[in-house]
Formats: sequence, structure tokens, C-alpha cells
Amino acid sequence: MPIDVDETQRRKEIAQATLAVAARDGARAITIRAVAKELGGSTAMVTNYVPTRMALISNAVRAAESRWRTELEDRVAGLSGKERLRSTVEWYLSSEPEDLLLRALWVEMLSTAHTDPAGVDRREAHESRQEFQDAAAAAGVPDAELAADVLSLLTHGYFVATVEEPGYWTPERAGRVARAVVDALAGDAPAPGRSQPTGKPA
Amino acid sequence: MPIDVDETQRRKEIAQATLAVAARDGARAITIRAVAKELGGSTAMVTNYVPTRMALISNAVRAAESRWRTELEDRVAGLSGKERLRSTVEWYLSSEPEDLLLRALWVEMLSTAHTDPAGVDRREAHESRQEFQDAAAAAGVPDAELAADVLSLLTHGYFVATVEEPGYWTPERAGRVARAVVDALAGDAPAPGRSQPTGKPA
Repeated sequence: MPIDVDETQRRKEIAQATLAVAARDGARAITIRAVAKELGGSTAMVTNYVPTRMALISNAVRAAESRWRTELEDRVAGLSGKERLRSTVEWYLSSEPEDLLLRALWVEMLSTAHTDPAGVDRREAHESRQEFQDAAAAAGVPDAELAADVLSLLTHGYFVATVEEPGYWTPERAGRVARAVVDALAGDAPAPGRSQPTGKPA
Repeated sequence: MPIDVDETQRRKEIAQATLAVAARDGARAITIRAVAKELGGSTAMVTNYVPTRMALISNAVRAAESRWRTELEDRVAGLSGKERLRSTVEWYLSSEPEDLLLRALWVEMLSTAHTDPAGVDRREAHESRQEFQDAAAAAGVPDAELAADVLSLLTHGYFVATVEEPGYWTPERAGRVARAVVDALAGDAPAPGRSQPTGKPA
């Protein structure tokens, strides 16, 4: 059943208002009341669509993920094999200014996981792992599930590291890691004797 | 100048009380008042040693780190080369029950990074990166700094992934990742023709 267009539009506006509150006052300041004020309406205007504070945060994160999927699809369109894997990993290990804000929201969501495990949205973790597995398999990586686990930890680590030490994780540093890991994963795939320029075992 | 013994002891007690509050009510519930109550004393008894909520959290994390360093040193004592690197990475990609609580505190600390960057304690990130670099160099990894960056993201990712999806990241799964990454980093180090059983290039 298709979702009501008005609801889709309203959830999108709520996501934008949530990001605006976080950008101005920090992710901790996100509340139903603050988002309602940002929208210039009543709290019911928010809670009719997004009922809790945690749902506000995951609504904003989901809206961004939907834009990210489109961006990633555009980026890897026409690429295959190792180039697709490389491009996927490089894209994950990069940061637009808005990404940093979204990662702050993600960390805020995780900071409640210990006491409210059900409030954590794990769909992005699943979906990105599936993307890694598909890209690794397409690149001929022998154990694509293991590769997806490695890449999942690596990208999660990058997201949280850019929150912890934004100055250290320059684009150059992250790009170097992305290239090295893709080479290690996919470099061995065609033949084990990779020291041979022909790619054939001796 | 040596730190006053009473202060060291008091900070340790405050760390224990902070963990007790977090274990019972979640990391979000950590406050000067809650920790003072846990200790059965006044808030001044806490603030004389640890002045802010963020300092409470980093005090508890630091106390645990000091225990971790001892544990890791015991574990790698007598090991060298690749075995030391493997043991280090396997130790980082494992979880004791208390670790999960500490990671929740760490995520709580990071959730304030966006609005209070100075409140984030980054010493553990620096120290673990240095450990990785030393272990990688000792294992003969050609670019030990790059290896340390890879391992830093991987272990940060593991810490946050065990908060996000504790059920998915079983010891077996994490151990598989640790072995694969160490093999990829150190396996090539002695000689490029690693498909040869003799380890010598053809």
C-alpha cells in the first residue's frame, strides 16, 4: 500500500526541521517540542507523524540515507568488478559537511542503545553490509561475506572516528585506507601469485 | 609531581560509582548528583576531584583503559612479530561484559562532541593507534602508519558495532575478521610471492 503523499511530505519537513535544530543546538537538543517550534506548529503536528524523540532522530537519518543511496548509485553507475568495489568503499570513507551532522545524530541514537535497544534503527547497518557483499562478490573477492564484515567495521569506524577526531581523518588519510583495503581484498582475487605481472601463478 | 594517593583512590572510587550508575540506569543517567548519591556523599565530594559530567565519564573510561593496558601487555608478553600483531588485533576485537558498558560510556561521550569538542577524551584513540603502529612495524608490515590507520578504524568500528548490533558481532565473526586482516597486513610482509609454500618469490 503506498504511503500517503502528505505523510511523506510531512515526514520530510520534520526531518529537515530536526537537522536544523541539531545544526544549531546539537543533537542532544532534538526534542518533539524543539522540532515543533522549528516548524512553527504544535507538538501534535509532529507526533501525529513521528511519535517519539528517537523516532525523530531515525526519521532524519533515514531521509538522509535515501539521498545517500541515490548518490552512491549515481557514483557506481557503469562501474563493475574491482572498480565498483573501490568506488563504493571510497564513497563510504568520505565526508560531506552534512554527513558530519548526520553522524552526530547516529551517535546520539546509539547513545541510547544500552537502555533502549528497540529505539535503534539498524536498517542502514544491514543495507550497507549487503551493498559491500554485492560489490565484493562482483569484484571476485573469494569470501564476500567476510569482506562485507571487514568493510562494515571499517566504515562504521570511519563514521565514529570523524566524530571523535575530525581533524585527523583528512580526505587523503581516509582515501589511502580505502585504496589499501580494496587492494588487499580484491588484489588477490584473480590469482594467488599476484607478484607476477602476468597475474598467473609461477 | 606525583598525584596525591588519596586523590588517586578517590578518583578510582568515583569511576566505580559512575559505572554502577551506568550499569543500572544507562550512561545517560550519569550525573554529578547520581554519582554522589551512589557514593553516599555530597556533590562536592565528587566535584572536588571530578568537576563535570563529561569528566565523570572520561574518568571512568580512563580507569578502564588503565586496566586494559595491563591486560593487553600480559596477553602479548613474550610474543613477537606477526603473532604479537595477531594477538593485539584479536584482543581489540573481543568483548568482556564490562567492555560493553564502557563502550556505551564512550558513545555517550562522543554524543556531545558536536557541541562540546573539548569534552571528548582522545587519548585512547592516540594510544591505541601507537600500539597498532608498533605492533605492525614489529610484524614487518611495510607501511606501519597506514596499517595503524586501518586497524584504528576497524577497532573503532567494532566498538560501535557491538553497541549497535551486539547480537550480530559474535566472537567467531569478530575473530574471523581479525585473522583475515592480520593475514592481509602481515602475510605479504616477508615476501611478495606468498602463494609459494617456501615463502620465497618464484
